[in-house]
Amino acid sequence: MAHIITDISRPSEADMALARSVTPATIHEAQDRSGALDPAIQPVKPGLTLCGPAVTVQCTPGDNMMLIAAIGTAQPGDVLVVSAGGLRVQGGFGEVLATACMSRGIAGLVIDAGVRDGAAIRKLGFPVFSTGLAMHGTVKETVGSVNHPVVIGGIVVHPGDVISGDDDGVVCLKRGDIDRVCKAGQAREEKEESMMAALREGADILDLSGMRQRLVDKGCQWSGTVNKMDRTA
Amino acid sequence: MAHIITDISRPSEADMALARSVTPATIHEAQDRSGALDPAIQPVKPGLTLCGPAVTVQCTPGDNMMLIAAIGTAQPGDVLVVSAGGLRVQGGFGEVLATACMSRGIAGLVIDAGVRDGAAIRKLGFPVFSTGLAMHGTVKETVGSVNHPVVIGGIVVHPGDVISGDDDGVVCLKRGDIDRVCKAGQAREEKEESMMAALREGADILDLSGMRQRLVDKGCQWSGTVNKMDRTA
Amino acid sequence: MAHIITDISRPSEADMALARSVTPATIHEAQDRSGALDPAIQPVKPGLTLCGPAVTVQCTPGDNMMLIAAIGTAQPGDVLVVSAGGLRVQGGFGEVLATACMSRGIAGLVIDAGVRDGAAIRKLGFPVFSTGLAMHGTVKETVGSVNHPVVIGGIVVHPGDVISGDDDGVVCLKRGDIDRVCKAGQAREEKEESMMAALREGADILDLSGMRQRLVDKGCQWSGTVNKMDRTA
Amino acid sequence: MAHIITDISRPSEADMALARSVTPATIHEAQDRSGALDPAIQPVKPGLTLCGPAVTVQCTPGDNMMLIAAIGTAQPGDVLVVSAGGLRVQGGFGEVLATACMSRGIAGLVIDAGVRDGAAIRKLGFPVFSTGLAMHGTVKETVGSVNHPVVIGGIVVHPGDVISGDDDGVVCLKRGDIDRVCKAGQAREEKEESMMAALREGADILDLSGMRQRLVDKGCQWSGTVNKMDRTA
Amino acid sequence: MAHIITDISRPSEADMALARSVTPATIHEAQDRSGALDPAIQPVKPGLTLCGPAVTVQCTPGDNMMLIAAIGTAQPGDVLVVSAGGLRVQGGFGEVLATACMSRGIAGLVIDAGVRDGAAIRKLGFPVFSTGLAMHGTVKETVGSVNHPVVIGGIVVHPGDVISGDDDGVVCLKRGDIDRVCKAGQAREEKEESMMAALREGADILDLSGMRQRLVDKGCQWSGTVNKMDRTA
Amino acid sequence: MAHIITDISRPSEADMALARSVTPATIHEAQDRSGALDPAIQPVKPGLTLCGPAVTVQCTPGDNMMLIAAIGTAQPGDVLVVSAGGLRVQGGFGEVLATACMSRGIAGLVIDAGVRDGAAIRKLGFPVFSTGLAMHGTVKETVGSVNHPVVIGGIVVHPGDVISGDDDGVVCLKRGDIDRVCKAGQAREEKEESMMAALREGADILDLSGMRQRLVDKGCQWSGTVNKMDRTA
Repeated sequence: MAHIITDISRPSEADMALARSVTPATIHEAQDRSGALDPAIQPVKPGLTLCGPAVTVQCTPGDNMMLIAAIGTAQPGDVLVVSAGGLRVQGGFGEVLATACMSRGIAGLVIDAGVRDGAAIRKLGFPVFSTGLAMHGTVKETVGSVNHPVVIGGIVVHPGDVISGDDDGVVCLKRGDIDRVCKAGQAREEKEESMMAALREGADILDLSGMRQRLVDKGCQWSGTVNKMDRTA
Repeated sequence: MAHIITDISRPSEADMALARSVTPATIHEAQDRSGALDPAIQPVKPGLTLCGPAVTVQCTPGDNMMLIAAIGTAQPGDVLVVSAGGLRVQGGFGEVLATACMSRGIAGLVIDAGVRDGAAIRKLGFPVFSTGLAMHGTVKETVGSVNHPVVIGGIVVHPGDVISGDDDGVVCLKRGDIDRVCKAGQAREEKEESMMAALREGADILDLSGMRQRLVDKGCQWSGTVNKMDRTA
Repeated sequence: MAHIITDISRPSEADMALARSVTPATIHEAQDRSGALDPAIQPVKPGLTLCGPAVTVQCTPGDNMMLIAAIGTAQPGDVLVVSAGGLRVQGGFGEVLATACMSRGIAGLVIDAGVRDGAAIRKLGFPVFSTGLAMHGTVKETVGSVNHPVVIGGIVVHPGDVISGDDDGVVCLKRGDIDRVCKAGQAREEKEESMMAALREGADILDLSGMRQRLVDKGCQWSGTVNKMDRTA
Repeated sequence: MAHIITDISRPSEADMALARSVTPATIHEAQDRSGALDPAIQPVKPGLTLCGPAVTVQCTPGDNMMLIAAIGTAQPGDVLVVSAGGLRVQGGFGEVLATACMSRGIAGLVIDAGVRDGAAIRKLGFPVFSTGLAMHGTVKETVGSVNHPVVIGGIVVHPGDVISGDDDGVVCLKRGDIDRVCKAGQAREEKEESMMAALREGADILDLSGMRQRLVDKGCQWSGTVNKMDRTA
Repeated sequence: MAHIITDISRPSEADMALARSVTPATIHEAQDRSGALDPAIQPVKPGLTLCGPAVTVQCTPGDNMMLIAAIGTAQPGDVLVVSAGGLRVQGGFGEVLATACMSRGIAGLVIDAGVRDGAAIRKLGFPVFSTGLAMHGTVKETVGSVNHPVVIGGIVVHPGDVISGDDDGVVCLKRGDIDRVCKAGQAREEKEESMMAALREGADILDLSGMRQRLVDKGCQWSGTVNKMDRTA
Repeated sequence: MAHIITDISRPSEADMALARSVTPATIHEAQDRSGALDPAIQPVKPGLTLCGPAVTVQCTPGDNMMLIAAIGTAQPGDVLVVSAGGLRVQGGFGEVLATACMSRGIAGLVIDAGVRDGAAIRKLGFPVFSTGLAMHGTVKETVGSVNHPVVIGGIVVHPGDVISGDDDGVVCLKRGDIDRVCKAGQAREEKEESMMAALREGADILDLSGMRQRLVDKGCQWSGTVNKMDRTA
């Protein structure tokens, strides 16, 4: 397929604000433990984060033509999500394209391949999530698609889905579920905050989590030191 | 097995001081080059270190129930050592449990799986050694053991063994060998310090290490540029 | 083979200055996209760089004897390039040898294996490019070669070739091609600088790169939202 | 999600006959080089083949509950396509379930995980494509989906797509493209047959494929032995 | 450690008969889903099986000295279990040692490394379970242990434990649990046999396994074709 | 580089006969334990062997143009040695090219990538050594070299070197060393034959190999069962 869709629909500002209010890990949990990409896709520098609507890109391994095409298609705040075949030994995105993205206001890049110019990109602070750094060049020969659904990191991403990433990796939040997921996520994070407050006050994690009873119910037993060395290991 | 041992014996304060006096790499060397876990288990942030008696935990892959149970069993200064099956794509330890650990004075966590909330844990500075970061949630369904021997990173760890870690990874120092190993390690580090002092003064590494003679003894030859290109590569 | 060549020829100062004027990624591109080592070989700390003539070393896996021999052979500014069999679980280079290298003015080390004493080496700032950190010791039993060609990271390196590395990894620039490659590389980097300047001014990446026409020529089509969900993914 | 769809639509008999007329590799080629699953998914015995409509299954890693549910949903000739999270160390399908499948007339199983009872399954001859053999048991605790789209081996499979596999691995042929793809594939295979006939008669591959001219056009040069050793390698 | 224990205790003949009566996968299941080695350790030829008391061996990576020592220590029917550090690229066991083993009546070899002379070993039919084939030689320099506990494939094996392997891989059955585990395993296999008989007669797997009710209890729902394409994948 | 060398020099018939007289593993041993390619490169069917002069090919990953060019350059008895970048997920050689090779009398193919049409190639019996099977197509766009040195599986291969392969993998025997290496190899195999004859007669491996004394010399100790459980594992 050689096709670029230019006018995708994106989440509302209210939805984007909701998405930004919770962490990627919380989104994954609240979305029925789904949507997390393979954690081999990591930020090029600890502390980088991104959150925005997906502009999806299908490249051929070793070819960055459609990545360039997608930069010309994206709107400010978008995140480029590039399915490129999983080659770690590939560097088809570097300082020039990062500069092009930043000039356009693009919020970040997620790619299942390597990128080059790591030192420069880290200095620019552009949020790139990749499978690592590599200097191996790519060609610009093969057309693919922009804004058709892609598979990346074992997950299907549709254009307009929300992509959120931090040091834990990247999650895809489905556009139709933003409100439900993020509100559940906020409740979850509030509960966790209060648990942490109690723990800092000295609460017992087994009581606080109800785990002591759960262990008993499942038949767990407690005792002092066993006499003969257990050989299970 | 569904069993928690609550009262393990731990090394003396004197032994723990000895263990802290040498690096993990030195412990590994002085312990007859044994005890080093698979280096895929790394600190979540460069510079983190830990050293303490092991509280051992056996979890089922994808299930963090016994990890919570173990937090409720550990004493200040202990290191949780969690054998969880080696899943990189798993995040069963995060900010809440790190807070629980810190409130209890636990010295650190070693796990052969991923952990979540990497940014928060890095900020807290809690020493976590894992196979990476991942946001994928776990369940709390399957009972296992606490303070029975476990295999992690290819090494057997018994409760009360000393676990020491830094950027080079994690080593298990057997409880009964602390005195012998650490004193040999101290001697080794002192010798290395004096070697480094000599090297900084300009000493030749081949003479200092006795390697020149050793090379001769093993038949090594020296020469100027060979005429035809060597094809061994 | 048990052979050490002590007097290799090295690039001229002018050639070394050329080599330092461009990044490793540019060298790879300008050298017909060749010479980049496997990106699994990375700096032990982000931001480290090295550039110097190669002193090549062939070690046996698990044995660092020839690495020590090579330190005694290298000249100030040289880069040690150690083919050691690719074992990640190996730490045959640490603080003592790093000190020996620095005292001799050696510019850096590239090895297809792990190294130990990561925290100390990072503090020293000695540019080590390795497959990671590990504390597992090595022996000093097996003779090999110094300054014979080696294969490392899938690339043949001859003594006197230029080795250049940064966060993107390591490239081998063949001694005979330095002038041609680096001048082409400088032209390439100048062109990229002017492209980035234009992009920062608001130029369109598709026009600037000529990619819009290229996409048309290859039959790419543009459109608004498709009606039925594309199932290609 | 905990949902089973029981009445999917399947390709016509004519379409299935077309799909069976060409190899999986040809389908991949004729489908614009798309649809091939990660080749880590292999037959448990060389020579096994399968071709049928997909009944898609989403399992949780380490849990085979929905795989059993899907067997009860499938029709004769169907292929079970099980997305289970990629765990090689998992054996949630064995002789009992293979017997259940065969009794129901199911045409085969594709799973991105290990299976157990390899010797028995090989003897039964049931076409299982997996990431290998492993005896590690699974639980039956977590509900998922049957006949919703799944991602497996980097590819989206919808219920009713055609799944075809042989020693080269598994391809997903989209239901709507069967006629176009298979007819193009037949033409391709016929052309290949005639090429092979010519080659067996002594035709030159460079002439037959037009590659000689193509090499000239791209600037390739021919010569006798070069005098000095090429150092590119 | 450099120590060989020559007189280990072994299971009784009755226990060995019990162990041989069930498959490795059944032993793993009946032993509380424990004891299975990493499935990367596979037979060198499909169909090979072994079952016998473990003679445990600790080798240094790249060194087969203790493997030879162990052959001289083993009794007829024993299985050599060699922990050698996990190197795939190693071939320290070949036709000569296989011949030595067979002459002594040794029942098989399990090693977490490669072996050489694959064609000859396959022809001899000696049951070797390894991480693959490789021709890379080893040295005979480093002493280790025979009949001390070892870690292999993530499992602790003690001398005299029962080692059982087939195409599914290898399991370690603890000596003290043979009677309990194997009798539970026999019951399990009998139940599976009767299930398979019923399935061949046409029984429904959902009814036979009680899974239909279990799915209902866990909230699973059934329906016909959904109207809009599910986007979960 | 875009260059094809058509007239390489090959070993004499006498040298080729020598090379065929010993196994690949023996060549590796007798060649100072060097020359063995990464064992990830395996025959597509157990039992396949090849031995012939190398015609070396440099392809770009994902591109099989030069592989076709090389077929047109090779002579009867040659082995194609294709360095293609290590992509497992690539199938740029299949039934058509295997037919072209066989018609030309080519002795086999070694490639560090996947191949397709595995069932057909196995049936033809053409000796292909690859990193596996995959159906993913390649393009024919990028020129490279034929009969220039290549790196494959970590080894440099020059045109005219001898390539020998069996189930243990592939070794490169340097053209200039054939006589020395193969005669040493024959002596080694004769010695192994006589050892195996003695072993089959009941000789003790420890005596026959001189290992008993060697163990004593290195300080190894023997004893009966130790009283307390060793905790080294």
